[in-house]
Amino acid sequence: MKTIIKNGTVVTASDTFKADVLIEDGKVSLIGQNLPSEGAEVIDAAGMLLMPGGIDPHTHLDMPFGGTTTTDDFYTGQTAAAFGGTTCHVDFALQQKGQTLKQGVEMWQEKAEGKTIIDYGFHVAITDPTEASINEIPSLVDIGVSSLKVFQAYKGAFMVDDTALYKAMEKARDADIMLMTHSENGDAIALLTEQLVAAGKLDPGYHLDAHPREIEGEASARAIALSAVTGAKLYIVHMSCSDSIAQMALGRDRGYNVMGETCTQYMFKFEEDMRVPGYEGAKWACGPPVRTPEDAEFIWESLRNTTLQTVATDHCSFNYEGGVDGKLPGKELGKDGWHKIPNGIPGIEDRMPVMYHNGVNSGKISLNRFVAITSTNAAKAMGMYPQKGTIAIGSDADIVVWDPNKEHTISAKTHHMNVDYNAYEGMQVKGMPVRTIIRGTTVVDNGKLCVEKGFGKYVNRKNPVIV
Amino acid sequence: MKTIIKNGTVVTASDTFKADVLIEDGKVSLIGQNLPSEGAEVIDAAGMLLMPGGIDPHTHLDMPFGGTTTTDDFYTGQTAAAFGGTTCHVDFALQQKGQTLKQGVEMWQEKAEGKTIIDYGFHVAITDPTEASINEIPSLVDIGVSSLKVFQAYKGAFMVDDTALYKAMEKARDADIMLMTHSENGDAIALLTEQLVAAGKLDPGYHLDAHPREIEGEASARAIALSAVTGAKLYIVHMSCSDSIAQMALGRDRGYNVMGETCTQYMFKFEEDMRVPGYEGAKWACGPPVRTPEDAEFIWESLRNTTLQTVATDHCSFNYEGGVDGKLPGKELGKDGWHKIPNGIPGIEDRMPVMYHNGVNSGKISLNRFVAITSTNAAKAMGMYPQKGTIAIGSDADIVVWDPNKEHTISAKTHHMNVDYNAYEGMQVKGMPVRTIIRGTTVVDNGKLCVEKGFGKYVNRKNPVIV
Amino acid sequence: MKTIIKNGTVVTASDTFKADVLIEDGKVSLIGQNLPSEGAEVIDAAGMLLMPGGIDPHTHLDMPFGGTTTTDDFYTGQTAAAFGGTTCHVDFALQQKGQTLKQGVEMWQEKAEGKTIIDYGFHVAITDPTEASINEIPSLVDIGVSSLKVFQAYKGAFMVDDTALYKAMEKARDADIMLMTHSENGDAIALLTEQLVAAGKLDPGYHLDAHPREIEGEASARAIALSAVTGAKLYIVHMSCSDSIAQMALGRDRGYNVMGETCTQYMFKFEEDMRVPGYEGAKWACGPPVRTPEDAEFIWESLRNTTLQTVATDHCSFNYEGGVDGKLPGKELGKDGWHKIPNGIPGIEDRMPVMYHNGVNSGKISLNRFVAITSTNAAKAMGMYPQKGTIAIGSDADIVVWDPNKEHTISAKTHHMNVDYNAYEGMQVKGMPVRTIIRGTTVVDNGKLCVEKGFGKYVNRKNPVIV
Amino acid sequence: MKTIIKNGTVVTASDTFKADVLIEDGKVSLIGQNLPSEGAEVIDAAGMLLMPGGIDPHTHLDMPFGGTTTTDDFYTGQTAAAFGGTTCHVDFALQQKGQTLKQGVEMWQEKAEGKTIIDYGFHVAITDPTEASINEIPSLVDIGVSSLKVFQAYKGAFMVDDTALYKAMEKARDADIMLMTHSENGDAIALLTEQLVAAGKLDPGYHLDAHPREIEGEASARAIALSAVTGAKLYIVHMSCSDSIAQMALGRDRGYNVMGETCTQYMFKFEEDMRVPGYEGAKWACGPPVRTPEDAEFIWESLRNTTLQTVATDHCSFNYEGGVDGKLPGKELGKDGWHKIPNGIPGIEDRMPVMYHNGVNSGKISLNRFVAITSTNAAKAMGMYPQKGTIAIGSDADIVVWDPNKEHTISAKTHHMNVDYNAYEGMQVKGMPVRTIIRGTTVVDNGKLCVEKGFGKYVNRKNPVIV
Repeated sequence: MKTIIKNGTVVTASDTFKADVLIEDGKVSLIGQNLPSEGAEVIDAAGMLLMPGGIDPHTHLDMPFGGTTTTDDFYTGQTAAAFGGTTCHVDFALQQKGQTLKQGVEMWQEKAEGKTIIDYGFHVAITDPTEASINEIPSLVDIGVSSLKVFQAYKGAFMVDDTALYKAMEKARDADIMLMTHSENGDAIALLTEQLVAAGKLDPGYHLDAHPREIEGEASARAIALSAVTGAKLYIVHMSCSDSIAQMALGRDRGYNVMGETCTQYMFKFEEDMRVPGYEGAKWACGPPVRTPEDAEFIWESLRNTTLQTVATDHCSFNYEGGVDGKLPGKELGKDGWHKIPNGIPGIEDRMPVMYHNGVNSGKISLNRFVAITSTNAAKAMGMYPQKGTIAIGSDADIVVWDPNKEHTISAKTHHMNVDYNAYEGMQVKGMPVRTIIRGTTVVDNGKLCVEKGFGKYVNRKNPVIV
Repeated sequence: MKTIIKNGTVVTASDTFKADVLIEDGKVSLIGQNLPSEGAEVIDAAGMLLMPGGIDPHTHLDMPFGGTTTTDDFYTGQTAAAFGGTTCHVDFALQQKGQTLKQGVEMWQEKAEGKTIIDYGFHVAITDPTEASINEIPSLVDIGVSSLKVFQAYKGAFMVDDTALYKAMEKARDADIMLMTHSENGDAIALLTEQLVAAGKLDPGYHLDAHPREIEGEASARAIALSAVTGAKLYIVHMSCSDSIAQMALGRDRGYNVMGETCTQYMFKFEEDMRVPGYEGAKWACGPPVRTPEDAEFIWESLRNTTLQTVATDHCSFNYEGGVDGKLPGKELGKDGWHKIPNGIPGIEDRMPVMYHNGVNSGKISLNRFVAITSTNAAKAMGMYPQKGTIAIGSDADIVVWDPNKEHTISAKTHHMNVDYNAYEGMQVKGMPVRTIIRGTTVVDNGKLCVEKGFGKYVNRKNPVIV
Repeated sequence: MKTIIKNGTVVTASDTFKADVLIEDGKVSLIGQNLPSEGAEVIDAAGMLLMPGGIDPHTHLDMPFGGTTTTDDFYTGQTAAAFGGTTCHVDFALQQKGQTLKQGVEMWQEKAEGKTIIDYGFHVAITDPTEASINEIPSLVDIGVSSLKVFQAYKGAFMVDDTALYKAMEKARDADIMLMTHSENGDAIALLTEQLVAAGKLDPGYHLDAHPREIEGEASARAIALSAVTGAKLYIVHMSCSDSIAQMALGRDRGYNVMGETCTQYMFKFEEDMRVPGYEGAKWACGPPVRTPEDAEFIWESLRNTTLQTVATDHCSFNYEGGVDGKLPGKELGKDGWHKIPNGIPGIEDRMPVMYHNGVNSGKISLNRFVAITSTNAAKAMGMYPQKGTIAIGSDADIVVWDPNKEHTISAKTHHMNVDYNAYEGMQVKGMPVRTIIRGTTVVDNGKLCVEKGFGKYVNRKNPVIV
Repeated sequence: MKTIIKNGTVVTASDTFKADVLIEDGKVSLIGQNLPSEGAEVIDAAGMLLMPGGIDPHTHLDMPFGGTTTTDDFYTGQTAAAFGGTTCHVDFALQQKGQTLKQGVEMWQEKAEGKTIIDYGFHVAITDPTEASINEIPSLVDIGVSSLKVFQAYKGAFMVDDTALYKAMEKARDADIMLMTHSENGDAIALLTEQLVAAGKLDPGYHLDAHPREIEGEASARAIALSAVTGAKLYIVHMSCSDSIAQMALGRDRGYNVMGETCTQYMFKFEEDMRVPGYEGAKWACGPPVRTPEDAEFIWESLRNTTLQTVATDHCSFNYEGGVDGKLPGKELGKDGWHKIPNGIPGIEDRMPVMYHNGVNSGKISLNRFVAITSTNAAKAMGMYPQKGTIAIGSDADIVVWDPNKEHTISAKTHHMNVDYNAYEGMQVKGMPVRTIIRGTTVVDNGKLCVEKGFGKYVNRKNPVIV
């Protein structure tokens, strides 16, 4: 089975050149000019960019949370991803209290089973940091899991203390697993939440008051310091503000093995969007919370100067008006208190166009840097490179055919995510995926899904790299 | 009772001018030129500087630690202080497990009782952070205690978690008490200690490996962030390295109510001094540990640019060769393991001459800045100003008559501290106190102690100020 | 002749204490409690602060500029200063082409002659940097001039090249004279001006485009580097933006002998005020130009953290509607082109109340820091300390009696400056001078001028100090 | 004519993958696995890395300087380059006084004519900044010159003032030419030189005193600011110290179009090497001068964090003992005064192995970053990409076959540069080029030069890019 993409412009994290790409057995086998097309399916990509399929290193599909479950399961979420040019993601498998880490992965494998459209992996999130759990960490490598998440927030639920974090780092270091942190000070959040609620401060905007920026900075500094001491590779997820990113810059300048991820929404949604009258602000409740336009500028600059290396979505979808018409309960759960809002913002479909339009078209980042932060760096950091994350010989033929001139208006009315609102509603972007190819198979073509449920495959990951 | 100091040059934290100073009832009552001297004891200070007596905001006298007790009690320690030009200090009263905070103060008051030579106050160190203890905090104001110390280190002994730290900050904020932190990550230290000891790494130098600089930076960032969130005034004690001081600079630039103290030894003793062959390095075991000459440069610059505001000693004296000839056990306790070394370095006597010579004579800091960092700022930060910390009308007449030309070689052979070694052994300094006056009474005159035990008075403190 | 100020609170750059102040022969001779008042004029200052009279280190009175002359001469300008609590200023004497530096001073001495109300000194501005002029520099000390200004801007008029700047620095260093720079890149401004004018861009707002912030940063970096290489003491005047102040911070952190001045208007007038429709923006034309609110925040922070040490006014008054009713031509001169606007903003009267209200009342700076930046530091930097800049024994009794509770609304209708607009029009301030005393003589009392023209005296200055 | 390189590992600035590379007509035409080799010359690269040939963006071959000429002409210099894995360089064509810029290029074209071994381009260095010269700038694009150098140093010889620099930037911006600066303050250097020489300070070490680091920082800040104002793309050559690189970081963080180059020697030769007794220090005389080990650390960090983007050599070879045995005069010219030392350090041959060994083997930079800073970024910055600087379809087949395990000891005894000393004498490196291929032709194979003089071709350059 051969496929040949002709006349396109290949873009990698460092290079841009015109070439045909031959795909055999799902892998890129030949890159060259004027490749002969006999015996091959031919895709004409004249005028198009050929970029490595997007990799979203941070998603939550089919995730139970606060008495409900995200609206996007693996089918709807991955379908939306494919429409947006994302060909692979790494979802979070949460260990359950009393279970092993592997049981967490197995539970999530079951959720994915038979529903997949794009390729995927799992981070394990440790939530029951017993000695047994910590000792189990190295064995994750055997099941293709090369990244482990530890929460410094969510006290009483997922939070681990510094001793557990330290020990987990040691195990991760020894087994060459990437240690990921959700870095906010959970003790402070718990106290602030208790106080705000007790004071009857229940509107969505108070979510911001419970999650001050300083404690994201603090927890980031803490994780970075412990990484420096243990030597573990550290990847801080969803960095939202200058407080934490400044700590990342300090750590990287000192030569530590640390890197940072931000999320699309932090460049477009702000505190003022949460403080609007009424309940609308609940849409943007997530942790860490949205911040300010000044932080957004800082993030763009940090993506450019390599302090931050990846852009994820932290996709986590709840309907704004759930619990009716057979819909799962959603954001409305927090109407009598912001602390009951299911946290999360959808975005798995929009990351690539939004970053391309606002980053590349505006000149904030180069085309190659766009590829780096949406795909290549995530593949390297998550131990999927060179199988994923580039267009190179031997790599999976995960390619997005990108029309740099196609215009589109983002809207919940037309998106493929199973959720009733969109964070970028009304944004007009120029530059859209027109064909999404995974392992040589066209998954989405010009607005049409072309594969069956179950097409997406699990990716065994190992040897993550700090970039 | 009147005393008049004639012909000297008064130096404050901002001004330098020639004037006579009249002291009545222990207080400065008149500053002027050619004051009439009838009816007054006259001290001729021609050619001398008159500076506010030194205030050492961080000492440990008569402190039990690791199975022994510091060699300097209130009598010997305060006597040495007086010889060095220090007229007031604030010692740490440690709450005992199961006791109230006040009982801690009472215990330390008893230690001081009848032995005092200079004036003094007590910080309370909270070590049993029960709800009762935390609720007790505001009442400290009633007993003249306006500063509260919390340990982020010494796991299993004094360390409190972030929830307790946060709550203590709230109470301190409400009662206008300065919250002080020993900022190192105790969890990490405990794990590192356990590992080093288990690996048979027992020489004094391994003390350094158990206290990496990064975790001082981390814990400082954490305390600063919690201060920013709660609004509590924060004073971080004994900052030793660029990692933590850079965090202080960040916090101050953001306008937080935070300030930092360093100690004399961090500018003169280094890691290389602890890594010498043999056991000599044990002399310099303290927490945080000594660092590098580059850190020392950073500290000097930070004292100059107002990131750091005070220089203390953390005076804590143990004999290098204790346990013999009737001496208390000392540093030798750690011969079979660095973790058993009683931590601490003596220095209460040397701070003023060492800082004057190395700071003022070298041009690193101005004469006025010397007064600020050795006296005025400590008085303000600790709630003793304007009673202490300046030469001004109505202030206690705590004055050191300083001969800028007097030369002296520091040595354990001649010092007045009750300990068998000196951190500045052999250092030749120019500029020495020749008379130390407290509340108008000459306490030390030209090498002679002039008061009886019990002369020193407890200082009621309130309304600490961030400078 | 004795005067005694009773019951006030003395404030210096470091201290605050209640005391009576006795003044004899124009100097502070005694500070104490309950001073006997017989034989002395008594001023009751109960409830009042007694602060060192303001020193404005940067003014332009009776200055010819662009075909006209500033509206404030020494009489009106100094009168306004006195009403605002300023007791001393240093004006710029401009060397004329072909003249010696001394002739410049003489010319300005004549302007002042017989018109003075407050004390004053002169900086010399070198504008004809011949070898003779440069060789003349050391002799300035003989006429009490300890500061020399060099322009890096105003090409074709005052600008000197780097060789002349370097040589001037060497002379200043050798003679212990403070080298001051107006730091903007004059070559770039000249080119930009030419281009803007050629393009018909003539509205006041284009003044901003001709003076981009980057070239203030550049020229500051250049002056600082040359100071570092020559060892000359450097004082950069009217620093307006983060670009230049960040360079100052770098230089100070490296230990160079450099310090910076800002001006009141940079914290309150912004680019948006110059870009208003119509001609109103011409009021705020000055060099460097006004910047942004973010720069203002940066300036406040830099005043607090000691990167900047003084606040001046660069007082330079032209009527907005001049040239009519016998008035000197003013801002209207630029109606057909922003490059013809006489540059300058008045403010000599408003600096003290504006900084007090917005700085001290808001908590941005402490009361002592207010004294430092409005008086003490200028005195030290300009070689007038301890004669001026403090309330201390032997110093000139230049004291402003300040009512911290007095409210006032600033307005051109009521101000004493001879100019038809005010930069702070309508600003309501709390905290005003109620009596201004110079050398023991009340100059302004409760809204009434109490001295005759000619009262103000020239101050011989020497030995400037970097603070 | 076909060549196929089999079994190697292709390395680009972002990717690493195993593939065969087919070369047709001097260009990479096919990259794939198991390419058929019939009809092609086959090169076996099993175990080897295939990297884009090195590009040295800063060299001086056959350059007259101070009464002599560099020992390496285009033949010997380019031969040495080829042996070291460098396949292309950009040399500086100096405009002569009274000539046009094009005549400068023509003069250098003649020097190269018939002697070339590797590909090459020319920067033009403007030295006679008349209006005609400046107006000529845009026409450089017609002769394939897309970079223009301006000297802020060498007063009286090459230096231009800020007005000329500004105008040159405007022309460069309009014509899309990269403006390059040698950033040191020439006025200061001239004065310092005059003074040192007059004082009889003539030993090589005084070269350092004439070129203080602060004035490199200053001139860099100035060039960056003028770039920001004009919008010209700026590339600062041979950045040697933290003073200037910190300015580059500031500029890039503000989003300016600026980038920086360093040179190999700044990481390995230091002030102490110039201050040795005797005349040996003359070997390391270059401008800017060598600095300190701390600067070297700062440079490595800046190469890693993308503040600096290229490593060049500034190759400029003079014999240490010239003027004898028919040799050109060399370093000995400065025996009676450091100011007569011909400036320059040879290194065109050593850059690649030295950076690989000390950067990649040590873990300071990744393999991909090595490619970026030694080749890809220079190609982009100099307008040669994608013709040069990568291994991609359609690019020139400039490939270095690199044996990561080959060990070599660098020495003047064995190097191919025509000069009697080596800056890295005795350095043992691991990782060496074993075959150098240019446009598909093997130029050096295992220690043997395989092409004739004249093989190297001129590269037409355009559209430089800030990376």
